[in-house]
Amino acid sequence: MSTPAALYTGAGSVVYAEREVEAPQSGEVQIEVAYTGICGTDLHIYHGVMDGRVDPPGVIGHEMSGRIAAIGDGLQGWSIGDAVTVMPLDWCGHCPACNAGYTHICHNLNFIGIDSPGAMQARWNVSERTLIRLPPTLDLRHGALVEPTAVAVHDVGRANVQPGEKVVVIGSGPVGVLIGLVAQSVGADVVILELDPFRRGIAEQAGLRALDAAADDVAASIDAWTDGAGADVAFEVSGSAGGITTAVQVLAVRGRLTLVGIHSAKREMDLHRVFWRELVLVGARLYGREDFESAVELVATGSIPADLLISRIEPLDHTAEAFAALESGAGVMKILIDCQAPDHTDRANHEGATR
Amino acid sequence: MSTPAALYTGAGSVVYAEREVEAPQSGEVQIEVAYTGICGTDLHIYHGVMDGRVDPPGVIGHEMSGRIAAIGDGLQGWSIGDAVTVMPLDWCGHCPACNAGYTHICHNLNFIGIDSPGAMQARWNVSERTLIRLPPTLDLRHGALVEPTAVAVHDVGRANVQPGEKVVVIGSGPVGVLIGLVAQSVGADVVILELDPFRRGIAEQAGLRALDAAADDVAASIDAWTDGAGADVAFEVSGSAGGITTAVQVLAVRGRLTLVGIHSAKREMDLHRVFWRELVLVGARLYGREDFESAVELVATGSIPADLLISRIEPLDHTAEAFAALESGAGVMKILIDCQAPDHTDRANHEGATR
Repeated sequence: MSTPAALYTGAGSVVYAEREVEAPQSGEVQIEVAYTGICGTDLHIYHGVMDGRVDPPGVIGHEMSGRIAAIGDGLQGWSIGDAVTVMPLDWCGHCPACNAGYTHICHNLNFIGIDSPGAMQARWNVSERTLIRLPPTLDLRHGALVEPTAVAVHDVGRANVQPGEKVVVIGSGPVGVLIGLVAQSVGADVVILELDPFRRGIAEQAGLRALDAAADDVAASIDAWTDGAGADVAFEVSGSAGGITTAVQVLAVRGRLTLVGIHSAKREMDLHRVFWRELVLVGARLYGREDFESAVELVATGSIPADLLISRIEPLDHTAEAFAALESGAGVMKILIDCQAPDHTDRANHEGATR
Repeated sequence: MSTPAALYTGAGSVVYAEREVEAPQSGEVQIEVAYTGICGTDLHIYHGVMDGRVDPPGVIGHEMSGRIAAIGDGLQGWSIGDAVTVMPLDWCGHCPACNAGYTHICHNLNFIGIDSPGAMQARWNVSERTLIRLPPTLDLRHGALVEPTAVAVHDVGRANVQPGEKVVVIGSGPVGVLIGLVAQSVGADVVILELDPFRRGIAEQAGLRALDAAADDVAASIDAWTDGAGADVAFEVSGSAGGITTAVQVLAVRGRLTLVGIHSAKREMDLHRVFWRELVLVGARLYGREDFESAVELVATGSIPADLLISRIEPLDHTAEAFAALESGAGVMKILIDCQAPDHTDRANHEGATR
C-alpha cells in the first residue's frame, strides 16, 4: 500500500508525497500515526547539517502518537487500535556501550526518524520493541508530547534533582519548560531563563518562574534567591555559548550542570570555576524505557500542560509551512503535524482503527 | 623568639631572613618544621599571580612534616615531639559551602601557606584543628608527601574509581603520579600520559604504564587497550588546553573526567562529545581530613614510593635555588626544603624535640 508522507529532500525542503509502505514484518506493527511533533533535531536536519545520517529523500519525525493498525506475525500482547507512542531507538546489542547497559548511547545507534524512516507519514512500521503503551483515554495530541517529556525525565534523573533543591533552566523552549515541570514535580524550586518574551510567557503560564536571560541582574537575582549560595542544579538547554557561561556562574559549590542543548561548536568554559567550586557537569542524551513510562504518567495525569505547549497543529500536507513557522521562531512552541489530515480514509486500509 | 624563614617578596624573588614567631596561643601548637615541599601552587605564587592573596613579603609552603615543639594553653592529646603534618585549611563555618558540609571549599577559605603564613620556616604556629598525626617511625621526608597524596586520594574519590576500571592520567608531575598510584591502590588499571621523558621515567619506575602524550597514536593506543570502549576515568592534571581535549576524546560512554589541573584561561571544550557519550566532568579541589588519614596510611605503608618522587632536598637558605630549579623544569619532580638546615639548634628553644 501507499501512504502520504512529508519527505525531507534536502536543506530547507520538505515535500508532501506518497510512498510505499509494506505490510508489517514478523516482530513489527504498523501504526496509523495520529500526530508527530517537530523538535529541535528535526530543525537541525532541515538545515541540511545531518544529511549524512538522513540520506535524503527521507521521512523524519520521532515525537509521535498513534494507534496500532496492523500486527506482524507472531506478536502477542497488542491489539488493533491500541494507543501507542514509540521509543525511537534501535541499538546493536554488542558494542561497548550496549555491553555496559547504556543501550540508548549505543556506538551504532539507529535513531528511528533520523537514521531510518520516521513518523511524518500516515502509516509507519516499527519493531514491537519500540512500542510504549498509552492509556486508551489519553488525547493523542497530548500523547505526542510523551517523547520530549521522556527527554526531560531523563535529564532530571541525570541531574539527580532532589526535593527542595534550587534549579535553574537555561532556555524555555519545549524541552526547557518540560525539564522545569519535571523538576517541579519532584519537589524542586525552579527558575527558567529565556531571551524570548513569548516563551517566558508560556513558562509562566505553565507555573514556572521565568527571568529575562539578557537582564543585567540575572546573577544578582539568582544570588538573592539562593541566599548567596548559588543554584544546586542548572540545565543548559539553549545550546548557546552564553548559556554555558551563565550555567557555570550560577551554581553553588558541588552544583551540577546538566548539558542538554546541542553545542555543535566548541565552547569556551571557565574550568577554574568548575575546579574551585567542585562543580559536576553531566551529559544527558535521549532516554530509556523507564523514562518513557514516567513521561506517560506525567502527561496522562496532566502534570504536563500539553495544550499550553502545543502552539499549532498543521495537516501533513502543510509540513513545509510548519517548518517555516518554526524557522521564523516567533510565537511558537511545539507544532504538531496531524498525520491523518487531509483525510486519507478513502485510500488507507484502516482495519477498524480509529484515533 | 625569631625563626629563620624563606620569604616570598614578589614575583621571582624568595629571600632567606629571620622573622619573629610568638609563643603558641591557646588552641595552637608550635611546630618545628622538618621538611616543606614546593608544589605547583607555590610556583604560581612565585610567578607573582597570587600577590593579592599572599600580600608579600610572606612565608609560603603547605606540604610539610615536623614535630610539635611547644603547646598552647589548654590543649589535650598532644605531646612535645609528636610527629605531625598539617591540613592547611581554615574555614569560616558559616558560609553556604560550610553550611552544606563542604568546608574545604568554604567561600571564605583561609588557605594556610597562601592567605596566611606557611611552612617554609623553622618554627610555625598552627591551630590544633589543622594537625594530622604521623606515625612516630615515619621518615619525615616521606611525611612531607602526605599533603599531595591527600590531594590524590581526594581526586580518586571524586572520580569514584572502582576496581578493574581503566584510568588515564594526563600529566606525570608529582600529583599525576600520586593519582595514578592511588588509583592503582584501589585496583584500577592506569595509563599516564606525559610529554617529558624524565617524568615518564619516574612514572614507570613507580610502576605505572606511561605513554608519550605527543605521540600520534595515543588515541589508537587507548582504543586498543580498552577494546574500543574508551577509558572509564580520566584525570586532567596537566592544566593544558591539549589535556582537556585528550581527556574528552579518550573516555568511554558515561566516562568521568576529573579536573585537577589549574586552568587559569578559559578552555575550548567539545561539549557535543560530553552530551553524546553522557560524560561526567567533576571538579576536584583540595581534601578533607579523611583524605589525609588515607594518605598517611598510603605513605606509611610504602604504597607511595616517596624516595622516588623526591628529587632533591635543599636547605632553607637555598629555597631560592630550589624555586629556580623547578622553574627550569628539567629532571625534577618534588623538591623538599629542609627547614632545620642550616642547623638552628643554637638559637631555637627545642624543649626536647628531635626529628
